[in-house]
Amino acid sequence: MKRAIVLLSGGIDSTTTLAIAIAEGYEAYALSFDYGQRHEIETQAARRVADSLGAREHRVAKIDLRVFGGSALTDDVAVPKQRSEKEIAHGIPVTYVPARNTIFLAYALAWAEVILANDIFLGVNAIDYSGYPDCRPEFIEAFEILANLGTKSGVEGKRFQIHTPLIKFSKAQIIRRAVELDVDLSLTHSCYDPTQEGLACGECDSCLLRLKGFREVGIKDPIRYAEK
Amino acid sequence: MKRAIVLLSGGIDSTTTLAIAIAEGYEAYALSFDYGQRHEIETQAARRVADSLGAREHRVAKIDLRVFGGSALTDDVAVPKQRSEKEIAHGIPVTYVPARNTIFLAYALAWAEVILANDIFLGVNAIDYSGYPDCRPEFIEAFEILANLGTKSGVEGKRFQIHTPLIKFSKAQIIRRAVELDVDLSLTHSCYDPTQEGLACGECDSCLLRLKGFREVGIKDPIRYAEK
Repeated sequence: MKRAIVLLSGGIDSTTTLAIAIAEGYEAYALSFDYGQRHEIETQAARRVADSLGAREHRVAKIDLRVFGGSALTDDVAVPKQRSEKEIAHGIPVTYVPARNTIFLAYALAWAEVILANDIFLGVNAIDYSGYPDCRPEFIEAFEILANLGTKSGVEGKRFQIHTPLIKFSKAQIIRRAVELDVDLSLTHSCYDPTQEGLACGECDSCLLRLKGFREVGIKDPIRYAEK
Repeated sequence: MKRAIVLLSGGIDSTTTLAIAIAEGYEAYALSFDYGQRHEIETQAARRVADSLGAREHRVAKIDLRVFGGSALTDDVAVPKQRSEKEIAHGIPVTYVPARNTIFLAYALAWAEVILANDIFLGVNAIDYSGYPDCRPEFIEAFEILANLGTKSGVEGKRFQIHTPLIKFSKAQIIRRAVELDVDLSLTHSCYDPTQEGLACGECDSCLLRLKGFREVGIKDPIRYAEK
């Protein structure tokens, strides 16, 4: 059975990507990161999702992005709330974590080399996250070239492939695909700034994009949000 | 003053690279990794070197490469000893750490973005480490392209440059350059398998290459080796 590394944050995009990899016949090795997030809720969601979808393995790599700071997600910077669609769509937000996808893909590549996998799945999305440079197709292509040059497997003639099945999907299209694949979206977590109890704030960019997606599909988001 | 990130293991190559960056007028931000090495001697050497050469800052990022295994340097695999020059020069050794330079450069890129540096120095060497795929010039070029596509700074028109001043140097040439730059090589550490007391084994690939380099230059290696 062909093996694939699937980067899994526990959000809707990476969860749907894991379901797609499994539906395509891959034995999935899910990889999450504990990178000094404000809450551990994200890695807990990833664990639930990996179990529920039947990943072969799930590992959480502890990495220290706080050592540099520079983002609202790793530093003491406020997460922006209630921004308009236009504000979310343009420019690079303060929630951008410097070089995050480069770091995540580098780790995925390391694990892929060890288990002899040639495929890495990443749930990036160039539509909703147009402001993130490392979610663009040209970035992914550049990483694929790097992977084939910088690894033992690449040198020995294997071809690494980075799969980004959602890169051109809107959030609504992703939710529809998840529903088709029977993904339990109540297990997912998207919020950048959850409450102590783990409830989504409903106001950060990530919650707003998620809620808009569910509205467009015409179904109710199954997760709980904090009372206003 | 222009800033540069310098990847610093505390070995001869990265130490000389740091001295070169400073000699070229960069304010140097030295970056080391605590990646589950068998000994902490490596990060201690890096600390001494950064202090001695006058790096502006030195940070040690704790990263977990043991989560995947796959190398004699992170796993429970024996470090090979007393290999011939021919054995060292050919093939990919078991001390190769999967995707290590990709991971290191990704972290360097993250820090560069935060401090607004456009330059990263890396002491890789394609001569002595011909067996390591991620020490080759084409790998470095691919990372440079990736860096400019995958970062906020790159998108905003800055050009990241990865400097590898030693890539075509032999170990003897590196030692000569270090001596010219008044680098105190007694502070450096190269051994893959030091004793409990921190003495170099004198028999692993890294010690053998180091000793050969000093022999060729005709000076005595100032570090202490374990008694046989």
